[in-house]
Amino acid sequence: MGSFFVPHDLQAPVQGAASGPLSGLQAAVKDMYAIAGYRTGGGNPAWYERALPAERHCSIVHALLEAGATLIGKTICDEFFYSITGMNAHYGTPANVRAPGRVPGGSSSGSAAAVAAGACDFALGSDTGGSVRVPASLCGIYGIRTTHGRLPVDGLMEMAPSFDTVGWFAPTAGVLRKVGRVLLSKEQCVPHPVSTLLVAEDAFEEADLDLQGVLTEALGMVGKHLAPLQRIRIAPKGLETWRETFRVIQAFEVWQVYGAFLEQYRPEIGPDVADRMRVASKVTKEEADAARETAYEARQHLLAQVIPGTIVALPTSPCIAPKIESSPDYFATYRTRTMRLTCIAGLGGLPQISIPIGSASGCPAGLSLVGWRGSDEVLLDTAAALARFCGAFQA
Amino acid sequence: MGSFFVPHDLQAPVQGAASGPLSGLQAAVKDMYAIAGYRTGGGNPAWYERALPAERHCSIVHALLEAGATLIGKTICDEFFYSITGMNAHYGTPANVRAPGRVPGGSSSGSAAAVAAGACDFALGSDTGGSVRVPASLCGIYGIRTTHGRLPVDGLMEMAPSFDTVGWFAPTAGVLRKVGRVLLSKEQCVPHPVSTLLVAEDAFEEADLDLQGVLTEALGMVGKHLAPLQRIRIAPKGLETWRETFRVIQAFEVWQVYGAFLEQYRPEIGPDVADRMRVASKVTKEEADAARETAYEARQHLLAQVIPGTIVALPTSPCIAPKIESSPDYFATYRTRTMRLTCIAGLGGLPQISIPIGSASGCPAGLSLVGWRGSDEVLLDTAAALARFCGAFQA
Repeated sequence: MGSFFVPHDLQAPVQGAASGPLSGLQAAVKDMYAIAGYRTGGGNPAWYERALPAERHCSIVHALLEAGATLIGKTICDEFFYSITGMNAHYGTPANVRAPGRVPGGSSSGSAAAVAAGACDFALGSDTGGSVRVPASLCGIYGIRTTHGRLPVDGLMEMAPSFDTVGWFAPTAGVLRKVGRVLLSKEQCVPHPVSTLLVAEDAFEEADLDLQGVLTEALGMVGKHLAPLQRIRIAPKGLETWRETFRVIQAFEVWQVYGAFLEQYRPEIGPDVADRMRVASKVTKEEADAARETAYEARQHLLAQVIPGTIVALPTSPCIAPKIESSPDYFATYRTRTMRLTCIAGLGGLPQISIPIGSASGCPAGLSLVGWRGSDEVLLDTAAALARFCGAFQA
Repeated sequence: MGSFFVPHDLQAPVQGAASGPLSGLQAAVKDMYAIAGYRTGGGNPAWYERALPAERHCSIVHALLEAGATLIGKTICDEFFYSITGMNAHYGTPANVRAPGRVPGGSSSGSAAAVAAGACDFALGSDTGGSVRVPASLCGIYGIRTTHGRLPVDGLMEMAPSFDTVGWFAPTAGVLRKVGRVLLSKEQCVPHPVSTLLVAEDAFEEADLDLQGVLTEALGMVGKHLAPLQRIRIAPKGLETWRETFRVIQAFEVWQVYGAFLEQYRPEIGPDVADRMRVASKVTKEEADAARETAYEARQHLLAQVIPGTIVALPTSPCIAPKIESSPDYFATYRTRTMRLTCIAGLGGLPQISIPIGSASGCPAGLSLVGWRGSDEVLLDTAAALARFCGAFQA
C-alpha cells in the first residue's frame, strides 16, 4: 500500500477560515506549493533537505484557506515533476484505487490518488506536460489545468515556466467548479457559449482501441448535449512534430531551473528521471530557439482554431493506466504517446479538463475538453452540465 | 446499464440561489421528496400516476436550493422504500459502478449509485431500516442517516414514521459535512467530544469473514485516531430479537401508510415487495403494541449505552453487495442479516454514518459509526477527521 503523502507531511491540518465557499472541505496539496512553515520537496529528498521553510503560503494556498478549506496533507509527486508515471523512487507509488496494481499517473500522483480514494475532497496539482490531466484520467476523477498565465505561480516550484500551470482534482464536477470559482478571478474570464465541438481525429488515432471505443461512444453523448461534432486534424504537421517541439523546450527549461542544483549536489534521482535530466542537460540554446519557433507556429495555429466558442475533444491519455511492473521500454513508449496528446494544450497555453467517462478493460477512461484561453470557467460549467450524462457512462 | 433516474425525471435542472454554501454543487433527489411542480413516485408507477404535482418544495429541498445547490435529477428507489436491494421491478436496478453486476442496495438506490458514478456531487436519500446506510456501504461512498425527528419530513413520502429519517450521500467526507451544515439546525445539536468507542462484537459476528477482516483492520486505525476501543455486546437479548421487533413495527406502520391505497387500486408491485406488503397487512395492532414494548426497552438500553461522548462501531452491512442474479432465498437471508445491524440505530432513533473503508473480495466495505441523539454534526466531523486515514484503507 503506497501512501499518498510525503514523509515530511503536515504535522497537523492547516485550518482555513471559519466561513467561506470551501468551508468544511478538505484539500491535499502537491508538494510543490509553499505552505508557511514547511519545506517544499518537489518529490526529491535532497531538494527537500536543502530547502528553507516557506515564510508564507503561496497565493493559491492562501486563497483556498481564506475560502475556508482545510489542508490535510502534502502529497507525493514525481521528482522535479519530470515524469507522468507517478512512480517516485524515494516515496513509492501512490495506490490507484480505481485500477489496483497500476500506476496513478504523474507528476501530481499523490493528489490524484488521494482524491480517488476519498482521502480528501479535492487536491492541488500542477500541469506542465500533462501532470494533472494524465493522473485524473488514470485515476477516474475530474482534473483541470488552467489557462497558462491565468493563476499566480508565486511560491510554486517551477518545472518549465513556459508551460507550467496550476490545476486541481475532484471526484465530481461541482466540487471541481467550486474550487475554480474561488481561484479564478473574473477579470481574466473570456465567456462565450460553446457552439463548436471539434473532434481531434489525429489525437483519437493515438489511443488504444479499447479506449477509442468507449471515448467514441461518449463523444456521441457529448455531441448530443453540447454542440454538433466536427471532425478535424488538430496538428497539420503531425502530433509527433509538436511533441518533439514541446519536449525540447521543456527539457531546456527544466535544466535551466534545476541543472545548477543537480550539478552541484549530485543527488540521488530515480533512474528514468535521471536519464531525462541527462538528456535535458544537453539541449542547446540553439535547439531550444529553433523549437520555440515551431512552438510559436503551433500556438498561432491553435489560437486560430480554438477561438471563443470552440472546444476540442480528445483522449486525455492514449491508454489506460499501465501496470506498475511494466518494463522501462513500455513506460518510455507510454510517455511518448501521452505527450503527443498533452503537448496540444501545452503549446497553446490552453485550459483542458479531463472528465471520467467510463472504463476500458476495467480501468478508468478520461475524455478531455480543451478550450480557448480564458475559458476555464466555461470548461468547468460544461463538465458540470454534462455530469449526469457522464455518470451514466460510468455505469 | 440501469439509469439512476426515474422516467418522470426533472425536465430541466432546478437552479438554486446564485450564492450560498452549496452554490456550484449539483444534487440528485430520491423520488420521495416533494419538488414543486413534480409528482412524487416512491418507486411505484401506480402511485406516481395518481399523485398530484407538489405545490411547493419540501423543507429539505427548499433548504438545499436556498443554499445554492442545483437539483439535476430525481432518482429511482425501491417501491414504497420497502426493500434494501435496490432492484426496482419497474424502473430497473441502478448500476453499482464500484461493484459491477451487483446490486447498489436500497431503498435509496439511484441516489447512492449516482453519487458513486460521479453523476452529481451529493444526493438525498431517506433511511428507515437502512435505506441510506446500506447503499452507501455497497456503493463505496459516504452516507448519513440523521437522528430520528431532527430534520423536517414535511413533503416527504412516509415509510414507517416511527423510524423514518432524512439522509444523504457524498463521495467524500467534507461534502457530506457541508450538506449537513446547511440542513442541521444548531439548536438541536448535542455537542460532546468523543471519548469512548464501543465495538459492537455481536454486530461484527454477523458479518462475513472477508468483510470482518478489513473492518477489523480499519477499527485499529479508527481506535488509534479517535478513542480507545472497548468491546461490548450491544443487544443483551440478541440482535435477532431486535430485528424482529423492528420488522413488526415497520410492517404495521407501512401498511397503515400504504394499505388503503394498495387495497383500493391493487397496483402492480415487484414480487418481493408485494410479498412483504402481504405479510405487513396481517400484522395486528396487538402484535405491533407488543413489539413497541420491546422496542421501548431496546431504546432505553441504547440511550443508556450511547450517551454523549460515546460512539458505537459496527459493520454497515453483513456482506458485500450481492450479485444481481442471486436467488430470492439469498436476498431474503441477506435482508434478514442486514436488518439485524440496521435495526440498532432504527430502534434507538440514533444517527449513523457509513464510511467507505476499503474493499472485501474486490467490492466496497463500509464501517458504521452510531452516535448519540443529536450527534449528527459530531459524526460528520469525525468522518472528516478520519478521511485521510480511511482513504489510505481504500488503497
